[in-house]
Amino acid sequence: VREQNERANPPQPDAPEAPTVVLSPSAELPALSPEELADLERVGQEWASRLRRPQPRLDALPLDPTLGRRPGPPTPTRFGRFAPVDLFQAELPDQLVASGAAEPTTRFGRAARATRRLLLGPQLSSAAVVQERMRKLVGLPVLSSDLLSSVAYGPEAMMAVLVLAGSAALSASLPLAAVLVVMVLTVGASYRQTIKAYPHGAGSYIVACDNLGRTAGLVAGTSLLTDYVLTVSVSVSAGIQAVTSAVPALDPLRVELGVLVIVILLVGNLRGVRTAGNIFAAPTYAFLLAIGLVIGLGLIQAAGRGFAAVPPPPVPAAESLGLLLLLRAFSSGATSMTGIEAVSNAVPAFRPVEWRNARTSLTWMVALLAVSFAGLVLMYHLAGVAPRPGETMLSQLARTTAPGPVYGYVQVATALILLLAANTAFNDLPRLLFFMARDCNAPRGFLHMGDRLAFSNGIIALAAAAGILFVAFRGRTEGLIPLYAVGVFLAFTLSQAGMVVHWRRHREPRWRWRLAINAAGAVLSAVVLITAAIGKFVEGAWVVVVAVPTLVLISLRIRHHYDAVSSALALHPLAQPTFPGPAQAPTPGPAPPAPPTSHSSAPSPTEAKRPGVAGGPAAADTPQEIGHLVVVPLARLDLAALRALAYAASLGQPMFAVHISPDEQEDDRFRQQWETWGNHVRLEIIVSPYRTIIAPLVSYLQALHALRPDITLTVVVPELVVRRRWHQVLHSGTPRRLRTTLRHVPGVVVTSVPVQIPG
Amino acid sequence: VREQNERANPPQPDAPEAPTVVLSPSAELPALSPEELADLERVGQEWASRLRRPQPRLDALPLDPTLGRRPGPPTPTRFGRFAPVDLFQAELPDQLVASGAAEPTTRFGRAARATRRLLLGPQLSSAAVVQERMRKLVGLPVLSSDLLSSVAYGPEAMMAVLVLAGSAALSASLPLAAVLVVMVLTVGASYRQTIKAYPHGAGSYIVACDNLGRTAGLVAGTSLLTDYVLTVSVSVSAGIQAVTSAVPALDPLRVELGVLVIVILLVGNLRGVRTAGNIFAAPTYAFLLAIGLVIGLGLIQAAGRGFAAVPPPPVPAAESLGLLLLLRAFSSGATSMTGIEAVSNAVPAFRPVEWRNARTSLTWMVALLAVSFAGLVLMYHLAGVAPRPGETMLSQLARTTAPGPVYGYVQVATALILLLAANTAFNDLPRLLFFMARDCNAPRGFLHMGDRLAFSNGIIALAAAAGILFVAFRGRTEGLIPLYAVGVFLAFTLSQAGMVVHWRRHREPRWRWRLAINAAGAVLSAVVLITAAIGKFVEGAWVVVVAVPTLVLISLRIRHHYDAVSSALALHPLAQPTFPGPAQAPTPGPAPPAPPTSHSSAPSPTEAKRPGVAGGPAAADTPQEIGHLVVVPLARLDLAALRALAYAASLGQPMFAVHISPDEQEDDRFRQQWETWGNHVRLEIIVSPYRTIIAPLVSYLQALHALRPDITLTVVVPELVVRRRWHQVLHSGTPRRLRTTLRHVPGVVVTSVPVQIPG
Repeated sequence: VREQNERANPPQPDAPEAPTVVLSPSAELPALSPEELADLERVGQEWASRLRRPQPRLDALPLDPTLGRRPGPPTPTRFGRFAPVDLFQAELPDQLVASGAAEPTTRFGRAARATRRLLLGPQLSSAAVVQERMRKLVGLPVLSSDLLSSVAYGPEAMMAVLVLAGSAALSASLPLAAVLVVMVLTVGASYRQTIKAYPHGAGSYIVACDNLGRTAGLVAGTSLLTDYVLTVSVSVSAGIQAVTSAVPALDPLRVELGVLVIVILLVGNLRGVRTAGNIFAAPTYAFLLAIGLVIGLGLIQAAGRGFAAVPPPPVPAAESLGLLLLLRAFSSGATSMTGIEAVSNAVPAFRPVEWRNARTSLTWMVALLAVSFAGLVLMYHLAGVAPRPGETMLSQLARTTAPGPVYGYVQVATALILLLAANTAFNDLPRLLFFMARDCNAPRGFLHMGDRLAFSNGIIALAAAAGILFVAFRGRTEGLIPLYAVGVFLAFTLSQAGMVVHWRRHREPRWRWRLAINAAGAVLSAVVLITAAIGKFVEGAWVVVVAVPTLVLISLRIRHHYDAVSSALALHPLAQPTFPGPAQAPTPGPAPPAPPTSHSSAPSPTEAKRPGVAGGPAAADTPQEIGHLVVVPLARLDLAALRALAYAASLGQPMFAVHISPDEQEDDRFRQQWETWGNHVRLEIIVSPYRTIIAPLVSYLQALHALRPDITLTVVVPELVVRRRWHQVLHSGTPRRLRTTLRHVPGVVVTSVPVQIPG
Repeated sequence: VREQNERANPPQPDAPEAPTVVLSPSAELPALSPEELADLERVGQEWASRLRRPQPRLDALPLDPTLGRRPGPPTPTRFGRFAPVDLFQAELPDQLVASGAAEPTTRFGRAARATRRLLLGPQLSSAAVVQERMRKLVGLPVLSSDLLSSVAYGPEAMMAVLVLAGSAALSASLPLAAVLVVMVLTVGASYRQTIKAYPHGAGSYIVACDNLGRTAGLVAGTSLLTDYVLTVSVSVSAGIQAVTSAVPALDPLRVELGVLVIVILLVGNLRGVRTAGNIFAAPTYAFLLAIGLVIGLGLIQAAGRGFAAVPPPPVPAAESLGLLLLLRAFSSGATSMTGIEAVSNAVPAFRPVEWRNARTSLTWMVALLAVSFAGLVLMYHLAGVAPRPGETMLSQLARTTAPGPVYGYVQVATALILLLAANTAFNDLPRLLFFMARDCNAPRGFLHMGDRLAFSNGIIALAAAAGILFVAFRGRTEGLIPLYAVGVFLAFTLSQAGMVVHWRRHREPRWRWRLAINAAGAVLSAVVLITAAIGKFVEGAWVVVVAVPTLVLISLRIRHHYDAVSSALALHPLAQPTFPGPAQAPTPGPAPPAPPTSHSSAPSPTEAKRPGVAGGPAAADTPQEIGHLVVVPLARLDLAALRALAYAASLGQPMFAVHISPDEQEDDRFRQQWETWGNHVRLEIIVSPYRTIIAPLVSYLQALHALRPDITLTVVVPELVVRRRWHQVLHSGTPRRLRTTLRHVPGVVVTSVPVQIPG
């Protein structure tokens, strides 16, 4: 519950306007809650009460870490991957600011950087995040394109079902269109309520979460995810179809063209949202003009023949015109409503006052959709256009009513708005994933803002998923449509049901009226949902019916893991005074604690005391509780080994060295070498007659830990670092495997002393 | 030069018989040379002279690392991958012995272990290495199978070339066979000299290395590598062909059967050499009996018709019978000589006295080869057998002369000895790679002896390469034969040319006579080599002509890298007193050295002084030279962060914390949290407006290192450890990337403080 409140009202004490913070890059590092701060303070007091030595301050450091007095830029070394020239621009006396990723040193690196910069533009500073907003005249076309563009395929999808009952059944499209217009207006009104109630950005996910609980929210969220992916696939395939209707020669290149378009959308969106808006603002207006032209010219021609409908070409009936067919046709036509939720998701992307601009945009969008949907269905009826393979109905209509250059214009505008519609999903899905990741329902990587302040990970994930789907269906719109309606209307239903609960809870002025609107929307959406899920199950809806619960399950597992992490990492200042044992005694300095007789038989009471927290440096959270023992595993006595020994010895803690020997002969030989060196450090040799190295060493360290769980074992591993990747196969890789394995051993800290090998 | 001497005469002061040490598991940890020991002693004296504190001894440790007084076995923890039960059996009071890999804890792990044990047998202790030797009666068949089995395809390969000039040309096989017998006897006599001169195992590689130089040795070694791989492929394909000649229905399964056979050979050889010998000893004797039967019965039948040759089926001539064709036929027939070097490579695998047993075996093998090769060619001539697709000539001959069960016996024996021949390569190639790896010409992994004291890596590499080749040629012998002769005769030529040089140098008794034998062998081999390389270049020899130089080049690069490593890791005790700077001053304890004004402008004179050694802990080899600064990079103030801070503080060295902040808002927030905690440690915040973390941190550390190259920066990284692999994608992976990058930064030591997350 707390996270949800935080989401709606982010606790930013110094943030003047809350919405600007919602999509902040610092969301990756969220603020601590008051309880966490209190815990932190108590832990700090424990440190202070046990800290005998004066606190290490600046004057205790051997150099000034602010680097302010640095005489010149540090020189890049031969091994440096990063040249640190000009990295720090000290703006304030005590502040360090990094100037982005350093210049790459290799020729390939520079070429990659130049390409990246050319495609994506220069890096954007975090401070630029507020400026990246949309004006209303830009936001309207960007966000409405999904909704409006769907009239290019929605009516056709509806009539493609009706025509199964013969060409005579096509006239049923008129009443169905009327029902759909009522439905569009209802749902539109319903979303207007939502925008007002959730001014900080409120898609179905957040509304369902807040009002219906977490699982319902996840169902809404994941169904929206499938919806967005399908939006991209369907819009791109319909856009390509608009092109191939005009130029049939391009049809064999359908799939390749679609993939190219998705890549262009990917790059455009990685550049950032405003740039995308500027690029893609015009097509919506162009498409509206095109639809107006087609309907207007069509009406004039129809008026010329007294509004008599041209009979469509005769098609034999394959099925009878029953209720089921009508419902299936309706649910196919309802794909035109996808994208109606886009504005409510993207409220914070509008310029202030966000909710008012968003609401105005939504009203315009819904009105435009209703007019153009109804107008197109009417014109199809009047002009006698029927679905046929190879050419879209819109193309047929435009070819009939407006031949010549106007036809070309209509097709180009259709293709462009469909591409823009795909772009809408690139705005919305990363934002949805951001919200889900903030609630720990999605991987935290989706919180990360890339170079250009866009949510790169979400954008890339969407492009990949949509690309795979598009290629899997070979870019056929009619194959993708059955998958489409289920996810959309599931989200609609949950969102509006959530609003019903919201009004019942809050009882603001006129809440009964608002509740009625949302309830009507919810019921209508549910009807479409059930129709689509049942009627089109076999044709493809099963994919979504399977995908949504799977995604919900994954999401719940992700949340479960993050909960485990969060409880494992929570501070427990009050648990400490209660646990007994020698680790409690504040022994000053590095001297080891007295041998604990009580510990040797019963392993690790520390861990037993603290639920959810296993291992770590003996579960001690203040420096004085940590007893040290440094272990240096060695293979040969070369420079790397002696450096590790010297480093370990210089820590001034108790230490010894371990050598794993394959046989007793080597054992003797190593002991002699050790004596030759001077035997400055105690040496243990473990003979491993089966020539394994990792297993005996790990077992040995585990045995040490079991003997004295209060002591932190620091394993100092000498390690060769080679410059070229293929050189790694020439070395045993034992240090790497040892590190990987030891990470899982409680009470062990691994220190790696690298020796870089030139060449 | 030193390595080569070491190889031939390993400097094992306490090893009674040198050959037993040649293939020791401790070869992975070679002894130090006298110079290295002297360096080590001097470095140790420096430690002693600068060690102020009493040396840390057993009584200084907080627990007894011999684990001798351990009250009970340590209990496996929830996070332990290895259950340390029964790991240590203390045989002597102060000795620890690991009892092999611990029991796996998961059900899958136990099943995998049981399967492994079933296939490969129980683990063998290093002490068992001497027992794994071959008796003469086992060694003879195991090592001679390659040589003897090749009469199953060698004569046929020769006659398949001759028949291109028509069936009349087949009679040219008799004089060619006579030449080949002379050649076999010459090369055999030549190798007898080699065995005597190199009793510790002397293949072409070692002989060429010793006498002709390293590059010639590498050419010989890599050509032998290609030879062994081809031995497996050709023998397996010829063996399968023997089966499919008798049962043509199996021909479509040729490739699958061959792969199955290679897998069986792989498993058998991973079990170890003696077991392999016992399994595979009988077939050689069976095959010799089969060849004897075929020749004997054939002779009786031929005697019945007065030794009149049956005319072969008429075949039209495609080419004329010129010198080139004869030479190509000869080089094809010479593939029968492959494997003659097997004994000289494997001398140490014989029971003592090794060289005498090996030499006796070689004499027998050569005599048997000459008789059976000549006998078979004669029989083919007398019985009028010609090459034809679908059935081998040996099968045709046996079917004619000995129909019924004897025919079946011949085919089975042929198939079995060919499989045994493939097995010879599994004995020899890993041994050759062992020698090459000891000389740093091959990856060191080939020094490792597996569970069963076999060189598992070499065995697996051979099986993989041969399997790929076999599948690529779809198991056709005739396609593989052209690749075969080049590698073999290149190695022969170099080996015997090396012996010529050897005799000229050593001038032992009768050296002129020995030199003449080897010179004759070298010249004959060189003729076959040139014939094969030119005459069969287009048919496939080009593969080997390309592969051998490529492998030599790779081998030289490997050696180059190991040389770089070795010089980088060499101890330099005398270089130290000469370099100036504050790091020289023996400052006691962890107090940091005085600020070095001379260092701030000129970076790292330490590195400049010491060629080949870059970075590391300030290139300091004694503990007193190391000045410390501990840096703790932090993202959030959670338990993991506080543990890392506590660990770092408990080291008692100067320390501070670094936080990378994406924007100034988060910067302020983090500072507040730090104050809440109590500000016990100095904190630096680097604002990274482009949201990169690794690059600014690394650049910052590089800048610190450039300021004070004499100080070792210890970076203490808090790190989450998750149990399931897929959970890793839910976390940023920044600690891992930081570790990987920091490994390349000189003067930085990385310490990873893990926090294990349950579930």
